[in-house]
Amino acid sequence: MKKILMLSFVVLLSGCMSSTPPEPDRSGDLSAISSVRDSFIAAFNANDAEMVANIYSDDAVVMGGGQPTAQGRQAIVDSNKALFDQFAAKILVTPDFTDVSGDIAYDRGTFAMELTPKAGGPAVTNEGRYLVVLQRQADGSWKVTNDMDNSAMAPAPVPDGK
Amino acid sequence: MKKILMLSFVVLLSGCMSSTPPEPDRSGDLSAISSVRDSFIAAFNANDAEMVANIYSDDAVVMGGGQPTAQGRQAIVDSNKALFDQFAAKILVTPDFTDVSGDIAYDRGTFAMELTPKAGGPAVTNEGRYLVVLQRQADGSWKVTNDMDNSAMAPAPVPDGK
Repeated sequence: MKKILMLSFVVLLSGCMSSTPPEPDRSGDLSAISSVRDSFIAAFNANDAEMVANIYSDDAVVMGGGQPTAQGRQAIVDSNKALFDQFAAKILVTPDFTDVSGDIAYDRGTFAMELTPKAGGPAVTNEGRYLVVLQRQADGSWKVTNDMDNSAMAPAPVPDGK
Repeated sequence: MKKILMLSFVVLLSGCMSSTPPEPDRSGDLSAISSVRDSFIAAFNANDAEMVANIYSDDAVVMGGGQPTAQGRQAIVDSNKALFDQFAAKILVTPDFTDVSGDIAYDRGTFAMELTPKAGGPAVTNEGRYLVVLQRQADGSWKVTNDMDNSAMAPAPVPDGK
């Protein structure tokens, strides 16, 4: 009886230990999220709309400043294709803060984008801020589900027609 | 000995059960986050900059479209005070999607803001989208840590001076 009880004790203890959820791998998650950001930068600077779309979840919502909302892969491909058709685009991304909890993460920072018209003419530089939400997928990878950016510059005043 | 072992068994089992983390109260969290949104709307529509600031964490970052970044309570109070000094402001907020995981949540939606100049003149309506990240605080409450909005409307073209 004593032996059986001792054995149960060990089985119970090991069952107890294995039921404790594993420590979340925070540094692994933050590193995976950095890789998603790097993939975005590489795809964007290759002006490859399909590759850019790969960082997003199937139902992702992209809300670019001054742009209509693009929801879902096809809309995201189309909006980037429209940009890359018109411009040679380069982006520089500077992350400020990234955090993760459970299956949600976010990344905040600034960017500078240089757009050189393919039709000729001088390049234009847009500077702004971004806030991106990511979701851990069923396969463990991280995808962007929400992507917003804006500029701190007030829109140019509308001429009053006087 | 048998009694002692049985007792240890019970103690171990109860210890094991209490070490299991409680089920996250998702609906409770979503309801708390709705309340934060409602508090923002009420404070904003009362044009009370101090009350608006109460929904944010101490180090929150507010990135309003066309506005400089406001970080921290005083900067957030000041930027709303500047708005409310100049305008009678009303906001209508329509949440689209809210999600929570662990200690991070986010809320996405649209808004329409009506600004009536106190100096007189017609009211202006701004419509846009918002993306807000919230963090569970040490006391269990939820505070906004990141707040971004923008407009889907392209900025007015800059007159070319010709």
